[in-house]
Amino acid sequence: MSGRALASAALKARVRRPQLLDKLTTADKLLHHFPNGAYIGWSGFTGVGYPKLLPIAMADHVEANNLQGKNRYSLFVGASSGAETENRWASLDMIERRSPHQVGKAISKGINEGRIKFFDKHLSMFPTDLLYGYYTKDRENPRLDVVVVEASAITEEGGIIPGASVGATPELIQMADKIIIEVNTLMPSFEGLHDIVMTDLPPNRKPYLVMAPEDRIGTPHIPIDPDRVVGIVESRLPDMTNENSPEDDTSRAIAEHLIAFLKSEVTAKRLPPGLLPLQSGIGNIANAVIGGLAKGNHFSSMKVWTEVLQDSFLDLFDSGHLTFATATSVRFSPDGFKRFYRDWDNYYDKLLLRPQTVSNHPEIIRRLGVIGMNTPVEVDIYAHANSTCVSGSRMLNGLGGSADFLRSAKLSIMHTPSTRPSKTDPHGVSCIVPMCSHIDQTEHDLDVIVTEQGLADVRGLSPKERARVIIEKCAHPEYKPALRDYFETAEQVCLKKGWGHEPQILSKVFGMHTALEETGSMKNVKWT
Amino acid sequence: MSGRALASAALKARVRRPQLLDKLTTADKLLHHFPNGAYIGWSGFTGVGYPKLLPIAMADHVEANNLQGKNRYSLFVGASSGAETENRWASLDMIERRSPHQVGKAISKGINEGRIKFFDKHLSMFPTDLLYGYYTKDRENPRLDVVVVEASAITEEGGIIPGASVGATPELIQMADKIIIEVNTLMPSFEGLHDIVMTDLPPNRKPYLVMAPEDRIGTPHIPIDPDRVVGIVESRLPDMTNENSPEDDTSRAIAEHLIAFLKSEVTAKRLPPGLLPLQSGIGNIANAVIGGLAKGNHFSSMKVWTEVLQDSFLDLFDSGHLTFATATSVRFSPDGFKRFYRDWDNYYDKLLLRPQTVSNHPEIIRRLGVIGMNTPVEVDIYAHANSTCVSGSRMLNGLGGSADFLRSAKLSIMHTPSTRPSKTDPHGVSCIVPMCSHIDQTEHDLDVIVTEQGLADVRGLSPKERARVIIEKCAHPEYKPALRDYFETAEQVCLKKGWGHEPQILSKVFGMHTALEETGSMKNVKWT
Repeated sequence: MSGRALASAALKARVRRPQLLDKLTTADKLLHHFPNGAYIGWSGFTGVGYPKLLPIAMADHVEANNLQGKNRYSLFVGASSGAETENRWASLDMIERRSPHQVGKAISKGINEGRIKFFDKHLSMFPTDLLYGYYTKDRENPRLDVVVVEASAITEEGGIIPGASVGATPELIQMADKIIIEVNTLMPSFEGLHDIVMTDLPPNRKPYLVMAPEDRIGTPHIPIDPDRVVGIVESRLPDMTNENSPEDDTSRAIAEHLIAFLKSEVTAKRLPPGLLPLQSGIGNIANAVIGGLAKGNHFSSMKVWTEVLQDSFLDLFDSGHLTFATATSVRFSPDGFKRFYRDWDNYYDKLLLRPQTVSNHPEIIRRLGVIGMNTPVEVDIYAHANSTCVSGSRMLNGLGGSADFLRSAKLSIMHTPSTRPSKTDPHGVSCIVPMCSHIDQTEHDLDVIVTEQGLADVRGLSPKERARVIIEKCAHPEYKPALRDYFETAEQVCLKKGWGHEPQILSKVFGMHTALEETGSMKNVKWT
Repeated sequence: MSGRALASAALKARVRRPQLLDKLTTADKLLHHFPNGAYIGWSGFTGVGYPKLLPIAMADHVEANNLQGKNRYSLFVGASSGAETENRWASLDMIERRSPHQVGKAISKGINEGRIKFFDKHLSMFPTDLLYGYYTKDRENPRLDVVVVEASAITEEGGIIPGASVGATPELIQMADKIIIEVNTLMPSFEGLHDIVMTDLPPNRKPYLVMAPEDRIGTPHIPIDPDRVVGIVESRLPDMTNENSPEDDTSRAIAEHLIAFLKSEVTAKRLPPGLLPLQSGIGNIANAVIGGLAKGNHFSSMKVWTEVLQDSFLDLFDSGHLTFATATSVRFSPDGFKRFYRDWDNYYDKLLLRPQTVSNHPEIIRRLGVIGMNTPVEVDIYAHANSTCVSGSRMLNGLGGSADFLRSAKLSIMHTPSTRPSKTDPHGVSCIVPMCSHIDQTEHDLDVIVTEQGLADVRGLSPKERARVIIEKCAHPEYKPALRDYFETAEQVCLKKGWGHEPQILSKVFGMHTALEETGSMKNVKWT
């Protein structure tokens, strides 16, 4: 029987190009496309829209045949994929190289124990650098061997309708030697929710003519060359998302400071009454901020230009204050997806998903005057921030889009609790330090730092002015004396030497970090 | 006699709006517009196109009346101004606050001794942040009190034709309460050489429809409100530029590595045969690179999209290999300007000067796929770079446009000698260090590091791979053992702890910097 005859009714309804159904098969029949060492691309972003059947079948195959550490791949995904796929691959030692972002205990362990060669890159640049051939430059084949994408439908032309994320799929497909499509018939078709532009290479690149978050500039599908499709499989597996992190007193206090600040900017006429398009990350502070905007009557007719939407944006839609939102993925909790599908008609025309090249592009972020908000590992007294490496060395998830937004936003805001717990002390880690142990956002990028203690507006301030306001407004009371002590000593020592623009004593600057490592708490720092 | 009647023939020929000549006066009659504490803007960029008569008259006034340290101003200029103006102001303690860039011994001294509140900012963002009101937010008057601009002509509509730079003049004029114009009749009129777009505020901002360096999108003049002009003076003072730093063996070796690399990129088809638009900074390495491109027959029909042009670009034009160049300033040496004016007809239609908001805008840099090249203070083994603060503390000149270009370029290149002299050792400072003492460009931004020793192509490499290639290819032989030693120890220690993504030992990471401070040479570092 031909593939076409085997197709389920659900699949036939989603795949409108019948010739493609001739390529219908099962995952196990496609495994030979993945020899050891292959360069592989997957669709997906922030744990939604990633392929499931093929990665799981490959992991099963490795497990069944004791190929752990023998079949190893270079894996490129727009951002993070699902725990049951990339994280399981990491635990089976199937990942040689990974970029540009990841989430999962096993993969983070593999990276930090040196088994996985990982590099993080601005999410806006990763797809174009891939297309430039930068990540395949040392191979004989300058393309990716196989790209596996999840689709929620396929058009008459063979165009792919993605699911809950677009991510880097357009560029992955442009770079693919072979394409495998997982058509997911469990979730509804997302047709009409996407605005796709493919990436041209310079000198042939054109402006992105987006003047407002709702502007469409592309097609509703990703065009592909059907001849490169080597197989189609039907998937009925869901995106395995988690619950959102709940708000707490700390995140609510941060949100209050932030909303009060935005109101004062409107009063001073530095922001319009409906603000400017908001960018907000993932996590409980972001939840509290967006939740706070939904609960009050602070600003009306808000819009969102961001990378990923989480559940709290549904509340913001329902509050009536949000008129339009665009992102590269909707990463809801399982309950959030239920709610989204149930009220589909309500959200459908207020939402647009774009490639990460577009959602995170500085061209549009700067033009729209986006208000960017992110959570760092730590911030220093001169307003640099660490978004990636704990103690300068241990990778968490990667840079993500933080620097895409904070570097070009009209208002670049870092929100963080003033402390985090260490193993032995509930306030053992100060998130305000003399110098960040890894720097991903520079002092030239940030406008506002906010903790539950208060908000530091550092716009137009010189470094020493910044240090004073950040310590006084943002640091936890238990750390203020140590930070003041460091800063005042550094200022005195450096001014005396005539190099006091941004005073630092390099031999002591990481004293809080080494105290944490040696004693379990930054509180035990001794500067002398 | 009215101002109009007093005007010289040269001035009348330049000022085509006669009503404005009614405001003709002399600098000393305008001093009352500058009370102590005023917020002032000047035209100018990289030491060309800055006002001269007013700043000199104000300095003379302060000197004559012993007002040093009593008349202090907040001074905003697109980038650096002339030594006889801002540097003299600094030596007379007339500068309270300065942004975003400066050049001059007295001003750098004032900053590093804590008398001048300086902050550096991406040159592309400074004018818009100024326009947002970020730098005047704590004042009663949210605008600049007085802006002094040099013009080479004034149109019938009262539009200003700048001289050898545009810089931040459009936005400074938008923010000005009062405008003073110095019409310079010593230099020729630059009319037709500029392409000006004013800055709109979001949400009303439009795309910059530049698809190639030669594209014009604006007007040849800066529109002004004539009612805000409080005075016009005629100036016959030249831009006081210096000689360009000459090439040497080190910079020639760097240029050779770099040109060979660009050729290999063309061979691999990652760059077109005429390359993509070049950005190059100021200094002897930039001179050697551009000079090298002019001398050989490496690439034809090149174009330039940069911030500032120095003399070597005249050689590149004359070689026939450069078809078009655009920047925000032409900062030639005195001889270079003579040559430029002499062969004006040859250069005139191959050159365009734009506002720094446009020349440095990531929208266009990314669209065009610019090849960005800059010189840092130091680079670290993981490919972060320091562009501003020696030993983390002492400000040199400021960030400039380095991060505008390197952050969005298709190829982001840092070129530096592998060592610099300390006071006691000709190789006492290694420009390759374990961690930069100040970070302005992150590991997520740089593609290539090149020294006279060799070239490290770090595209697609994980941090530990980067460290190996940077140490082996770029470090000076006298520093390789110490760097290897540090990296291998850090790797071992961090991998054992399971945080070995980017191995650093924070208690030792600045060992080379402290050895320099304590012993006069980084060679004396002892890791244990």
